[in-house]
Amino acid sequence: MEVLDAAQRLERAGHDVIHLEVGEPDFPTPGPIVEAARAALDDAGLGYTPALGLPPLREAIAGHYRDAFGVDVDPARVVVTPGSSAALLLAMGMYADAGDRVLMADPTYPCNRHFATFVGGVPGLVPTGAETGYQLTRALLEDAWTPDVSAVIVASPSNPTGTCVDAGEVRAIAELCRQRGAALIVDEIYQGLVYGRDPETALAVAPDAVVISSFSKYFQMTGWRLGWMVVPEDAVRDVEKLAQNLYICAPTPAQHAALAAFAPGTLAILEERRGILAQRRDVLLDALPSTGFRVRVRPDGAFYVYCDVSGVCDDSFALAHRLLHEAHVALTPGRDFGFNRPGEHVRIAYTQDIPRLREACARIRAALA
Amino acid sequence: MEVLDAAQRLERAGHDVIHLEVGEPDFPTPGPIVEAARAALDDAGLGYTPALGLPPLREAIAGHYRDAFGVDVDPARVVVTPGSSAALLLAMGMYADAGDRVLMADPTYPCNRHFATFVGGVPGLVPTGAETGYQLTRALLEDAWTPDVSAVIVASPSNPTGTCVDAGEVRAIAELCRQRGAALIVDEIYQGLVYGRDPETALAVAPDAVVISSFSKYFQMTGWRLGWMVVPEDAVRDVEKLAQNLYICAPTPAQHAALAAFAPGTLAILEERRGILAQRRDVLLDALPSTGFRVRVRPDGAFYVYCDVSGVCDDSFALAHRLLHEAHVALTPGRDFGFNRPGEHVRIAYTQDIPRLREACARIRAALA
Repeated sequence: MEVLDAAQRLERAGHDVIHLEVGEPDFPTPGPIVEAARAALDDAGLGYTPALGLPPLREAIAGHYRDAFGVDVDPARVVVTPGSSAALLLAMGMYADAGDRVLMADPTYPCNRHFATFVGGVPGLVPTGAETGYQLTRALLEDAWTPDVSAVIVASPSNPTGTCVDAGEVRAIAELCRQRGAALIVDEIYQGLVYGRDPETALAVAPDAVVISSFSKYFQMTGWRLGWMVVPEDAVRDVEKLAQNLYICAPTPAQHAALAAFAPGTLAILEERRGILAQRRDVLLDALPSTGFRVRVRPDGAFYVYCDVSGVCDDSFALAHRLLHEAHVALTPGRDFGFNRPGEHVRIAYTQDIPRLREACARIRAALA
Repeated sequence: MEVLDAAQRLERAGHDVIHLEVGEPDFPTPGPIVEAARAALDDAGLGYTPALGLPPLREAIAGHYRDAFGVDVDPARVVVTPGSSAALLLAMGMYADAGDRVLMADPTYPCNRHFATFVGGVPGLVPTGAETGYQLTRALLEDAWTPDVSAVIVASPSNPTGTCVDAGEVRAIAELCRQRGAALIVDEIYQGLVYGRDPETALAVAPDAVVISSFSKYFQMTGWRLGWMVVPEDAVRDVEKLAQNLYICAPTPAQHAALAAFAPGTLAILEERRGILAQRRDVLLDALPSTGFRVRVRPDGAFYVYCDVSGVCDDSFALAHRLLHEAHVALTPGRDFGFNRPGEHVRIAYTQDIPRLREACARIRAALA
């Protein structure tokens, strides 16, 4: 947030800032989704929906698991939420009581720490490095496990690292959680945004996992605030009550809009955009070495590259500050994502077009020369 | 929720159920608001907004305090939220740490208890009766105060009682909170829906209160999920960080729509509807005595009548069940709202037109004859 504020101040002063810090796709919401919203404004009631979401949307989401992943999900287990933020909060409300520890990778999506703390839980940060793709493994979890662990959060693809967890590892982690009586929460918020591999869901190998997903990233509906989760059948009623109390329901216009998200015409637009993101990633991975930034793990998802900048600086926060002011390039310093060598890392979001990405790398190169 | 489920089952079986349990206005969202949403779908970016909300909307809300209440509010203190649910959650996150007690009237809006518990706080229910309009007073709070109190919630107009707190009492409560170092949170979610009195805001007499409001009730935008809060200046930065972590931002289409909420044409529609609600209230207050339901305090706000049913039953939950199945009239039993003589009370929502309200009273009368 501080980087964004400073970047906006520079822009107001007339500077051309390249934003590589923004975790938001630069594509507009696909036309068919906006069209569906427009039709809903004309025709639909815009009152509260059931707490778990519009029934046809829950069915459409279940259909997506069947069509895209070959996984059978009962629509009754699908919970439509006001953004995946609300889904993460619900999951913490369900699976972390006061004093419970929630294990998560470090680096991690920063809100995960805050959600755990908000409900009185304790974030248990497990340092992860390049050797495991910055991801948790069953072995890392076994080493980190303490008796107070009530839940594990795995993110695939991950923010900030853009890496995925392979199905075999998800299966092994799920087995461990089952043995130890902990919930496995899988953040699939960037599901669909993968390159050179097929999209996956943890539900294929861990049907009892709590899976969290989003219409924001792949479906490019950020401002609409809509996500979903799939929960075990025996949790549905408790999740429903908690949802009713916490937020009543997800936004109704967004739910109607999202009914068009899985239509073939929409998916064609989204797949084309996925191809563009893949090209950007490749351009960035080619250009970054010349800046002195090292990419230790080739990212294959989301729209992030997690860079080791220890070759060019002692302190990534100072580096981000310097590059913003000297090169007008905004990056996110590692300290946003945890406590595991944050000074050695920055996150780059490729939510800019290829010429801007090339220009950003050229500016960084020049500034650090 | 159980009443609603049972009522819907009866409807599916072909029965004509009169819904007096629904806390949602039966008017559609006013045309100018829907129009503004439509224009936003055409023209506006639909990405994330700043966590505190679209700046023009924050200014419009501040303008509303000036125009409708003659109260000066810096737009910087206005926080646009995804429903007032999120505002209540933010307020609890800000003002209730683990073990802190949050005093609130009993009967109360049920979610308030859950919000307090969710963050590890303790709901401190203060029984309130007809003699104080079911509202907290400074004297009641002084009697109930314990050293662990960190916040007080006052609701005016109140759900479920439809009663308001007078400005003098708000001022006295604010003074007490200030002396004891507790936050005063004023739920003004039903602001504007008052009958035979002028709308008020606690900010007129307690400028340091945390005031929570909503676009759902007076502005009839329930499904859009949009509310706001006004916080003290020194809390803004912390609320911003918490909002960013908890939900990123309020729904963008709804924020654009709400820009039309304070336009004269919209307010004219809303004031006409307020007149209709006032008529319904009067019809209900005239008809209820013949059913045996007693209204001990004349409600002057929201769209609720809180009825004493001790003259016709021993148990309001059993009564609600019986009236649903024998008269096909759905009411909310007192136990939804707390532990203070819940068996003696039901809540009636006049979110139905006058003929239906008359019919409901006739059915209740016949069933209890």
